[in-house]
Amino acid sequence: MKIAVLGGGGTGQALAAAFANSGHSVTLGIRAPIGDSLTMPRPQGKPLADWTKDTGIAVVTLQDAAAGAEVIVNATLATGSIEALTTAGVDKMSGVIVIDVANPVDFSKPFPHPNLPAYSGDTSLGEQIQAAFPLARVVKAFNTLGVQVMVDPGLIGEPHDLFVAANDAQAKAVVMDLARSLGWTRLQDMGDIKGARAMEMFILIWLQIMSVTNGSLHNLHVAQA
Amino acid sequence: MKIAVLGGGGTGQALAAAFANSGHSVTLGIRAPIGDSLTMPRPQGKPLADWTKDTGIAVVTLQDAAAGAEVIVNATLATGSIEALTTAGVDKMSGVIVIDVANPVDFSKPFPHPNLPAYSGDTSLGEQIQAAFPLARVVKAFNTLGVQVMVDPGLIGEPHDLFVAANDAQAKAVVMDLARSLGWTRLQDMGDIKGARAMEMFILIWLQIMSVTNGSLHNLHVAQA
Repeated sequence: MKIAVLGGGGTGQALAAAFANSGHSVTLGIRAPIGDSLTMPRPQGKPLADWTKDTGIAVVTLQDAAAGAEVIVNATLATGSIEALTTAGVDKMSGVIVIDVANPVDFSKPFPHPNLPAYSGDTSLGEQIQAAFPLARVVKAFNTLGVQVMVDPGLIGEPHDLFVAANDAQAKAVVMDLARSLGWTRLQDMGDIKGARAMEMFILIWLQIMSVTNGSLHNLHVAQA
Repeated sequence: MKIAVLGGGGTGQALAAAFANSGHSVTLGIRAPIGDSLTMPRPQGKPLADWTKDTGIAVVTLQDAAAGAEVIVNATLATGSIEALTTAGVDKMSGVIVIDVANPVDFSKPFPHPNLPAYSGDTSLGEQIQAAFPLARVVKAFNTLGVQVMVDPGLIGEPHDLFVAANDAQAKAVVMDLARSLGWTRLQDMGDIKGARAMEMFILIWLQIMSVTNGSLHNLHVAQA
């Protein structure tokens, strides 16, 4: 499958490399793939020039990455996601699958308590992206995890789950298959894209557990009777 | 231990009965333990007059329940919790342990998407109660679960966790021991009372999974490497 990952941070790098490793045709798009953008440090990742050398994955513009892609991964900052997807041309791409990995929080407050801008429980970034791009099929996924576990679920020995929400059942199934290709075996369907409201709150729990355990290799599992 | 449960709904009924069954001296306090308050239907519970007949637990005023209690369980509606605890006299009870079970959401919107009144991630009901009653030791616990599993964790066969947050380590340990007396074996420390910010978001996840699976016997487990 042709997959465009938008966003040059550690999450974008990890997902792009993992999808390439599992046999997909992957490009990584950023706003301006020149100069400092390629050499500056990236949180939870490498400078992109080094990363390209390691992975062989091209870093191109948002538009060039998205052109012809069947799946677009939104790993941009939540505050700029709709603008980045517009720049990439997603507004004209009928049926394209957009995997929204972003979390609408800002980290201007001390760890582990991010700021949630005026969250009132009646929307989510996933829903906002779906509303902004009605031709696309938005799937919220991979936002509930740390970078390492996201692409290597086997790092945790006990059962743990990948949570997925989308309006379009076929798009959801495609993303679940992509997740299986990364090693995920337990997929927790969170319903339609409104499920993103709950999924975007996972980061509070994830960060709190990181704070208490001083580790990042954890995830949630839904235990059921 | 002398335990006062404040709040006559299903959660208060279930916790009061469970603590009484495990050998504690329990009373249940409501605002006005007379007339309609004793005979009206209670969501996820029974009319209190029937419940008292079944359990032998007295239903008294908030003040009478709290008098002399070592542990007070706040199972009142979040919008009225601080007022109810004030009426109960908690402002004058130095060192008392307050287990805050309430979730600050309202259910005026269609299931499974409750309204979160202007939540911005920088406070929680647990913290607000601790700030309102500085002499008390507030422990956030039992708010992340459905009523059945809360008092009977064995209903779920696989590992699943009870999440607990508090500033006072000794109070947290007392509540963990109380939880063990109800059958809980996996206690997830969520740090100080600020951990309530994350814990109060669990209800979104819990409701979403209820919506998708059409069941209420589920809980979260923190899987770790």
